[in-house]
Order: sequence, then structure tokens, then C-alpha cells
Amino acid sequence: MNTRVGIVGFRGYSGDELVRLLSPRKDLEVFLLEHRADSQDRTRPLNHQGPKRIPCSPEAVKEAGIDVVFLATPAEVSMALTPWLLECGARVIDLSGAFRLRTVENYQRWYKEQHTEPALLEEAVYGLPEFNRDQVKPARLVSNPGCYPTAANLALRPLVEAGAIDIEAGIVCDAKSGVSGAGRKPSLKTSYCEVTENFSAYSILEHRHVAEVLLTSSLSERQFSFTAHLIPLDRGILETIYFRTKGIQAAAEIVSIYQKAYASSPFVRLYSPGHVPDLRAVQRTNFCDIGLKWDESTGRAVVVTAIDNLVKGAAGQAIQNMNLLLGVPETEGLL
Amino acid sequence: MNTRVGIVGFRGYSGDELVRLLSPRKDLEVFLLEHRADSQDRTRPLNHQGPKRIPCSPEAVKEAGIDVVFLATPAEVSMALTPWLLECGARVIDLSGAFRLRTVENYQRWYKEQHTEPALLEEAVYGLPEFNRDQVKPARLVSNPGCYPTAANLALRPLVEAGAIDIEAGIVCDAKSGVSGAGRKPSLKTSYCEVTENFSAYSILEHRHVAEVLLTSSLSERQFSFTAHLIPLDRGILETIYFRTKGIQAAAEIVSIYQKAYASSPFVRLYSPGHVPDLRAVQRTNFCDIGLKWDESTGRAVVVTAIDNLVKGAAGQAIQNMNLLLGVPETEGLL
Amino acid sequence: MNTRVGIVGFRGYSGDELVRLLSPRKDLEVFLLEHRADSQDRTRPLNHQGPKRIPCSPEAVKEAGIDVVFLATPAEVSMALTPWLLECGARVIDLSGAFRLRTVENYQRWYKEQHTEPALLEEAVYGLPEFNRDQVKPARLVSNPGCYPTAANLALRPLVEAGAIDIEAGIVCDAKSGVSGAGRKPSLKTSYCEVTENFSAYSILEHRHVAEVLLTSSLSERQFSFTAHLIPLDRGILETIYFRTKGIQAAAEIVSIYQKAYASSPFVRLYSPGHVPDLRAVQRTNFCDIGLKWDESTGRAVVVTAIDNLVKGAAGQAIQNMNLLLGVPETEGLL
Amino acid sequence: MNTRVGIVGFRGYSGDELVRLLSPRKDLEVFLLEHRADSQDRTRPLNHQGPKRIPCSPEAVKEAGIDVVFLATPAEVSMALTPWLLECGARVIDLSGAFRLRTVENYQRWYKEQHTEPALLEEAVYGLPEFNRDQVKPARLVSNPGCYPTAANLALRPLVEAGAIDIEAGIVCDAKSGVSGAGRKPSLKTSYCEVTENFSAYSILEHRHVAEVLLTSSLSERQFSFTAHLIPLDRGILETIYFRTKGIQAAAEIVSIYQKAYASSPFVRLYSPGHVPDLRAVQRTNFCDIGLKWDESTGRAVVVTAIDNLVKGAAGQAIQNMNLLLGVPETEGLL
Repeated sequence: MNTRVGIVGFRGYSGDELVRLLSPRKDLEVFLLEHRADSQDRTRPLNHQGPKRIPCSPEAVKEAGIDVVFLATPAEVSMALTPWLLECGARVIDLSGAFRLRTVENYQRWYKEQHTEPALLEEAVYGLPEFNRDQVKPARLVSNPGCYPTAANLALRPLVEAGAIDIEAGIVCDAKSGVSGAGRKPSLKTSYCEVTENFSAYSILEHRHVAEVLLTSSLSERQFSFTAHLIPLDRGILETIYFRTKGIQAAAEIVSIYQKAYASSPFVRLYSPGHVPDLRAVQRTNFCDIGLKWDESTGRAVVVTAIDNLVKGAAGQAIQNMNLLLGVPETEGLL
Repeated sequence: MNTRVGIVGFRGYSGDELVRLLSPRKDLEVFLLEHRADSQDRTRPLNHQGPKRIPCSPEAVKEAGIDVVFLATPAEVSMALTPWLLECGARVIDLSGAFRLRTVENYQRWYKEQHTEPALLEEAVYGLPEFNRDQVKPARLVSNPGCYPTAANLALRPLVEAGAIDIEAGIVCDAKSGVSGAGRKPSLKTSYCEVTENFSAYSILEHRHVAEVLLTSSLSERQFSFTAHLIPLDRGILETIYFRTKGIQAAAEIVSIYQKAYASSPFVRLYSPGHVPDLRAVQRTNFCDIGLKWDESTGRAVVVTAIDNLVKGAAGQAIQNMNLLLGVPETEGLL
Repeated sequence: MNTRVGIVGFRGYSGDELVRLLSPRKDLEVFLLEHRADSQDRTRPLNHQGPKRIPCSPEAVKEAGIDVVFLATPAEVSMALTPWLLECGARVIDLSGAFRLRTVENYQRWYKEQHTEPALLEEAVYGLPEFNRDQVKPARLVSNPGCYPTAANLALRPLVEAGAIDIEAGIVCDAKSGVSGAGRKPSLKTSYCEVTENFSAYSILEHRHVAEVLLTSSLSERQFSFTAHLIPLDRGILETIYFRTKGIQAAAEIVSIYQKAYASSPFVRLYSPGHVPDLRAVQRTNFCDIGLKWDESTGRAVVVTAIDNLVKGAAGQAIQNMNLLLGVPETEGLL
Repeated sequence: MNTRVGIVGFRGYSGDELVRLLSPRKDLEVFLLEHRADSQDRTRPLNHQGPKRIPCSPEAVKEAGIDVVFLATPAEVSMALTPWLLECGARVIDLSGAFRLRTVENYQRWYKEQHTEPALLEEAVYGLPEFNRDQVKPARLVSNPGCYPTAANLALRPLVEAGAIDIEAGIVCDAKSGVSGAGRKPSLKTSYCEVTENFSAYSILEHRHVAEVLLTSSLSERQFSFTAHLIPLDRGILETIYFRTKGIQAAAEIVSIYQKAYASSPFVRLYSPGHVPDLRAVQRTNFCDIGLKWDESTGRAVVVTAIDNLVKGAAGQAIQNMNLLLGVPETEGLL
């Protein structure tokens, strides 16, 4: 029998991307769990039905025999739904920030809200497969990483671990994201006329996602400066990361550190020194592309990393995690 | 003493454009009339104050000695404010649809709402200066035309009057507008990710603005088919108008009809036959550009007309009307 | 053994789309036929090789045992390559206009150039599968339709055949296309700063693609007015088509004519009366979506039809044709 | 008699902006100096003549009595034209990089080309009025600054001079520009379909403009890391600048340093701490807006600065310089 997967929040951009990526799979049966019927549906052609819809309730989830549920919902909704979904026997992959920060103190500091499920926070596995595939496989609850930290950690952690960065001199991560990262809910900040032909910085030195980079790449706030920017485009994140190297004699050595770190990771792609990815290279794919420029005379390095915020930064990575849970190839449905 | 002008709805796109166009004028003093303090202001540099703000109340308007008020507000707000503004001695230029359709029956048919000020509806002068400058000059209440009808009527009325169109064969007006035409209030339809890289038709055969074209160019609904479209850009309207000519022997004759009609109208620009304007030609100007292609063998004509929906389609035309009210040159502050 | 397919012009936008759509197929082996080595390649990640490249020569094509060749090339290149490719035993699917217009006279009239392969022009099958699947299946040379005519003919031909249009009153087709339709060769007209925030009409009443609509939907030039426009976006065509109906009593009757015509055509999708597609509905798919609005009191109809110009308007339709040539399901690799 | 100003390169984006800004001025007479007649003109309405055109020759320049010439041309053209223009008695404001870098060695290092006019290179005054108004006033040859360095130097130099930056820890300037900065000449990199929905880094650590920042703000290459990025929009530059402060106790102290430095500079606008400009704030204006965020606990600062690359980054600043040459108010025609 096919695995049965449910999606909560299927009208949002990440949820919609989950539907798009999961629908063609023949090993799965997809259900849309109707949580807020008041959100606006898209117009659909006659005779072109999407996946089945069922209520987002314990009864309906049990009756449908759902095996895995994706939560493409705000953190507070994820905290409310996860306990009973787990009790129904479903495994949960949460795309919100609810279960990413390990401790209630850390959550409260960065999200400025109480955490209502401390035990689940402790249990949750941080689903960045490139670093912790083995912990993901048996998990009941996977916390899917944030979009900015996915790109930053894949670029930084191997170099930090290899001791190749002069950490005390500080790392600057200048991050730029398309507008879909802000979600589908209408707001002035994401209105067309406010965004088009405009470019702006936000959450300077205080973005919530910083916490995930500090945890995963073992950095302190003083060592890691991060600013987010809004690009007038739909999807994609590009981060330009500046630091000084330690003990590096050639740009190829940096590439080599990455190659070792990602030898078994099919979704990280590397470029020859001096070449860097643009957003086009990764849009609508689950790849994280990494390229760099290194200045021999001063030891300054600039790493550029790019992902699609809705794929490797959300729905695609969630499916990568689901594949690990189900024991199917990590790339299934993603290449 | 300088003329004192007030703007209600100064945070919306038309209101903002009024502020931008009126602020440099040395013959005017501009006041922002604060009607809804809950709307979101833009961040401003230190020491860069915009115009003075006063409450939108009879007392404040009288005290400030406001001579002319621009209403860049929804129709129902315009109907509520206009009576007491006129009583305060201010002349009113209304940018909404409240006073455009002459009769309450016509208003109710197209706006699906009751009209609460029938006497003012009758008094209001339709402010399309190219056709009725003389009526505008002495008016107390000017109804500023809609954006789509401005472009359509300037293209059609001279030809209809000259008998150059085979009206019974029907006129098609395929209209395209930038997103600012929908106003600054956030909505899913004008959210960045819904609009960018997208294009859509709306209000097919039933747009409210059709009524203004029928009235001004003396057409019946059966003779005039109109569809609006949303272009993924900020500002500008381009209309492609199709019809068969009557009694025309050369494209130059059509240009000639326009040249006669607009000999004293500085904001209508014409192109040689076979050349048509694009939006770039008119953005951030008060011009309405008109070009055309005529097919000799079949008598089919295509007229392309372009305006900036926030200037000639709203704020600029409103100022053109104000110039007429004040007896200063029609082009003052607009070239 | 797998079918071997070759692509000439793989660096252009249609060619690139062919590579993207064909690469995942397990029943095919893809070869890039290098015809102009001077065009600019994209930067690629290390260890991420695209398909094999071979010269575009009779020797190489024979040695590789190519079964089907896609020509994503200008008309004059297609005319030069097709004869020897056919001699090598390959079947050819040409995406240019070289073989679409049936007679040398018609070609010369609309393309203003001599046709150098009259015999092949006569042999070529016009590959619009919804109307002539059976002729495509055994063809040696398939002429893939133009993007605009694909959308227009799918909307018009069933209604013309059913006698539902008052043809003498004239049909207006107002067509809008994204910029990728103009190809990848740099030009001022497709430069970013000329296109963004701009909108323009071109080829008014004289676009080459008109000829394909006249041929396929049996119309005369006098009856069919067509203007093309450039939308500031990458991909997609939307056409707004105006006409008066004949013998129609309800909008549902028009939908019903389409439903009968496309009962066996998986790539045409229909909407309930009053609903129309936007570009988002079809981008990156091989669907042609058709919706309409009908005005009962006057018999005026507006049909809106949308395709992705690079998929159903080029590469996707070419693959649909290839599937017919190979006898595999028409939808293979396209859903 | 009016001052007579000439523009070479009037079809490019900076040249076009010069025409737009200079045309309304009543104290000037504008001439277009026709240097390359093969470039593509825009379509113009009938009876809407632009400024007079004369050949770009010594005879024509003398006959017209041109007082000031703007060169909106590539560096090599500027080097060729400047000597004879000066001999004709015209004063020259050059918008290219030809005369910015003070010494032939420095020019050759960054531009990888020989400098053919060393004496003029020495004579030229670097026209960043906020720092050297007095040198500009009497100059024969003004070298108008690059767009990126204008924004960077206005943000950095006052802080460097005040000793407020820990320079040895390094300064990172992550710069983003709209596409018009690349000029009007068609190229694949600035083609619409390559740029829209894309974002990319270029000239990492080796952009020519770095040299101007090092010279003006007294920094060494090791201390200043700069990466340029292309934003999918027409105009505007935003730079996000990271450093650690020295001796600063409060964000307001940094604002205060700027306030002192720019007390007499009408085109620099400042924001309260924690607020930063977006591109919208400065587009189509000659303002340079500066805002910042400072982290008390770690002394990290992020300064965000924004200009319009075609105005304060090119044509507007050139006119600001012309105003200084002519002894009229610095803001004339620019507010």
C-alpha cells in the first residue's frame, strides 16, 4: 500500500510547493488537511481536481491512515497540531520555527513568545540531512530548517569545522531573499507596488534565523553578522559571505573541504574557484550551490551560496527528510 | 497670498502623487488632511518634513483657509466629505467614481450601491479638460475621470464625432493597467508573488469604467467591448482599440482628425501613422499619447493609446483641473 | 535500446527547455548537436555534466544513430539542415517557421524571403496534435506550430467549425507574450531596462503568425485582426479574443463545443463560464487553458486562452509530437 | 545670455537622464552633440522635438558657443574628446572613469588599459561636492565619481575621519545595483530574460570602483572588501556596510558624526538609528540617504546607504557639479 501523506497549510507558498512536488509520485497518496477553510483557493480548470481534501482532525487523520504530515503553518499552529498528530500515529515534519531552537529559553529569546511544548522541542530532530541524516531516519518529529540558515550553514559549517576561518575577525553574511519567503498572507510590505523596482534591508543584526546558524555552525553572535534583504522577485535566496581564512594556501583547498564534506550529499553542488552561482542555477530545484572567490594576497574570502527558498529552503528539504523517514532514496521525486 | 490646497487620502498612490506634483509649486501651500490616521506612513529621513498635516474637519479646513480640496478617497468617503467641504467654501476635485455618472440610476447600475448625494451628482462637472475646459473653470465640484476612460475617450470621441468609425461593426478596447491602479490597500490580488511573472484579465465586459466611455463618446454597450488586464508593473495604462473605419482613405486622415481635435490641448501627443507609443513614453508625465495603424485593403484600424494611470489618469489630470479652476496656465507644474 | 534524440540550438530558450524536459526521461538518450560553438554557455557546477555533445554533421549524426532531431533554430538554418538530417535517416521536428505555411508563395508573402526547400515544405506535417494527431504519427518532418497560433487556433477552430462565430463581424485577437518568445540573442528591444516597467504593442495587423491562424482556422485576413504585445515577464502567452456569437443561447453551449472538440486531448483545459485562466495557471506546463465570458443580451463573447510559449508554444508541443512519432503516450514526460 | 551646455552620449541611460533633468531649466540652452549617429533613437511623438542636435566637432562646438560639455561616454571616448573640447574653451564634466584615479599607474592597474592623457588626469578635479566643493568651482575638467563609490564614500569617509571605525578589523561593503548601471548597449548579461527573477554577484573583490573608495576614504585594499550584485530592477544602488566601531557609546553618536559632516550638504539625508532607507526613498532624486543599526553589546555596525545610480550616481551629481562651476545654487534643477 502507498504511503499516505497529509499537508496542512496547502494554500500557502510552501504548502503549494509540497503539493506540486508530491503529486506526481506514484509511491504516495496525498491528502490536503483542511485547517482554515477561509483562505482563498485558486481558480481551477473544470475536471482538473487536485488531491483529496479531508478535515484536519484526529478522526479524519486516523480514518485516512495518514503516515506523515507536513505542517506548512505558523509556529503557534504547529505547536497546537503536533501533539495530537503524533498521538494519531503520524510522523510530523514541521516547516515552521516551532521546534528548531532546542531549548525554550532560546526559543523565547528569538521568537519573543512562550513555547508550549517543551518536551517535543527536546525530542525534535533538526532536519538538515547533509549534517544529520542518521538522526532524521528514525525521528517521529522533524524540524525542517529555516531557509536562510540552510544556505548559511551549508556554506559555513564545513569550513568552521576544518578550522579554515579566522572566526575572531568575524563573519559577515549578507542575505537576499525573494518575496515568497514572507508567505502568502497579504501585507503592505509584500504588495506589488511596494516591492517592484525596490530593494530593502530588514531585520538587521537581529533576524530569528541567526539562532539556527549559531547552533549549527557553532558560532557566537559577536562572530556572525547577518542582514536580510528583500529582492524584487518571487523565489530564491542568495547569500554573500565574507571572512578571512586561516591556514589556506589556495582557493582549491576551500573547494576541497566542501567536496569532502558533501561527498555523499547529492543536493550540494560546487563551482570551480572564481565562479559563483546565481539564483537561476537553483530555482525550482532542491540544490544548494556554493562558489567562492579567494584573494591570495590578503586571505579574504567571499563565498556565494544559492538555494530556492521554497524548495531546499522549505518544501524540497521537507521531502528530502520524508524520504529519509520512509527509507526511500534521498533524491526520490527531487531530481 | 498663495492658494491653499488640501489633500485627503494622501497615503494612497494617487494621493502620494498629488503630494509629489504639488510640493514644488511656489504658488501653492499644501496641507495634508488627516482622515484615517491608522494607515501606514512611509519612513522619512530626519529633518525632511513633508507638508503640514491638519485634521480633516470643518473647523480645521476653515481655519487653514483651504481653497481647493483633492479627494483621493473611495467613492463612499467622497460622498460623505464633499457636502461639508463645499459648505466650508472649498472647491472640491474628487478622484473617485462618486460623481462621474450623472444620474443616480446610472451610478447604481454600475457601482451596485445607492448614491447619497443626488444634487451634487447633478452639479458635478466631468473634468476631462480636452473636451470641456470651459465648464470646468467655474465649477465648485469637479469629478476627475477614471483612468481607463481617460485613455479611451481621448482616442475615440474625436473619431466618433467625425463619423470615421463604423460603430455598428463594434469597437473593441483591450485595456492593460499597472498594479497601482488597484490602490495601496493590501490584497491577495495585488500581492507581489501573485502578480510578478503573471498576467491576467479581469472585469471582462463589465468594468465600471465602461459607463464613462459610453457617456463621453456617445456609444452603446453593444458597440463597445472592454476588457481590463493587470500588467506586472507599477504604473501605466495602454489600450489597444480595434474598429473599422468609415469614409477614411488614408491613415493620415485619422491623424488629422486628432490634430484638429487637440490643437489647443497640450497634453495629447500624436505619432505618425504606423508608430504607436509604449508606456515608457508617458510614465511620470501628464501626456496621453495616441498612435495608430490602418490597413488600407480592409479598412481595419488599431489605435494604441497610453497614459500614466497615476498622472493623466488621476493626480495629474486633477491638477490640470485645479489649474483651470484657479485660472493659471493649464500646464502649470505638469511639464 | 533507447531512442536517441538530438537537439540543435540547445543554448536558446526553446532548446534549453527541450533539454530540461527531455533529460529526466529514461526511455531516451539525449545528444546536443553543436552547430554554433560561439554562442555563450551557462556556468555549470563541477561534476554536473549536461547531455553528451556531438558535432552537428552527417557523420556524427549517423555514428550516434540519432532517431529524432529537434531544430530549435532560425528558419534559414532549419531549411539548410533538414535535407541532410532526413537523408541520415533521422526524423525531424522543426520549431522554426520554415515549414509551416504549406506553399512557397505564402511563405514568401509573410516571411519576405525565398523558400529553398519547396518539396519539404509540401511534405511537412503541421504538428498541432489536437487537430491532426493521425497525420503526425507517420511523419518524417513535423513543423511545430508557432506560439501565438497554437493558443489562437485551439480557441477558435472548434467554434468556427461549429458555426458559433459571426465571422463576418470580425474576430479580434489581442495577444500578449513574455520576452522569451523573442529568443536569447541580445537586442535593445529585449534589454532589461527597455522592458521592465514597460508594455508595448508590435507587429500590429501584420504579424507572421497570423498566416498560421488563417490556414488552420479557415479565416480570411479581413476577418481576423491580431496585435502582439510584449509583457514584462519571462514566459507565457495570453490572448484575449473578441467576437459575436451565432446561434448560441448560453455560455455553457460554448464550453460544450470545446469539451467535444477536446475530449481526447489531455493538454487542453477548460473553465466554467465567467472564469478565465491567468498565465500562472499554465507556466512550465504543456497545458492550453481556455475560459470565456459571454454577454447574453448582446451575444458578445470574450475568450481568454493561455499557454507557456516555451512549452505548449514550443518545446513541450515538440515533445508531444515526438511522442506521437515514437508511438508512446502523448503525455509522456509532459505531466 | 543663457549658459550653453552640450551632451555627448545622449542616447545612453546617463545621457538620457541629463536631457531629462536639464531640459526644463530656463537658465540653460541644451545641445545634443551627435557623436555616434548609428545608435538607436527612441520613437518620438509628432511635434515634440527634443533639444537641438549639432555635430560633436570643434567647429560646431565653437560655433554654438558651448560653455560646458557633459561626456556620458566610455573612458576611451572621454580621453579622445576632452583635449579638444577644452581647447574650444568648453569646461568638461566627464561621467566616465577616465579621470578619476589620479595617476596613470593606478588607472592602468584597475582599468587594464593605457591612459593617453596623463596631464589631464593630473588636472582633473574629483567631483564629489560633499567633500570638495571648493576645488570643483574653478575647475576646467571635473571627473564625476562612479556610482558605487559615491554611496560608499558618503557613508564611510566621515566615520573614518572621525576615527569611529575599527579599520583593522575590516570593512565589508555589499553593494547591489539596478541594471541601468551597465549601460544601454545590448548584451546577454543585461537581457531581460537573464535578469528578471534572477540575482547575481559579480566583480567579487576586484571591481574597478574599489579604487575610488580607497582613494577618497583613505583605506587599503586589505581593509575594504567589496562585492557588486545585479538586482532585477532598472535604477538604484543600495549598499550594506559592515564594520566594528571604535569609541562609540551610542548609535546617535554615529548619526551625529554624519550630521556634522553634511550640515551644508543638501543632498545627504539621515535617518534615526535603527531606520534605514530603501531604494524607493531615493529613486529619481539626487539624494544619498544613510541609515544605520548599531549593536551595543558587540559594537557591530551596519550602515545602509542608497542612491539613484543615474542621478546622484551619474547625471544628477554631474549637474550638481555644473551648478558649482556656474556659481548657481548647488540644488538648482535638482529638487
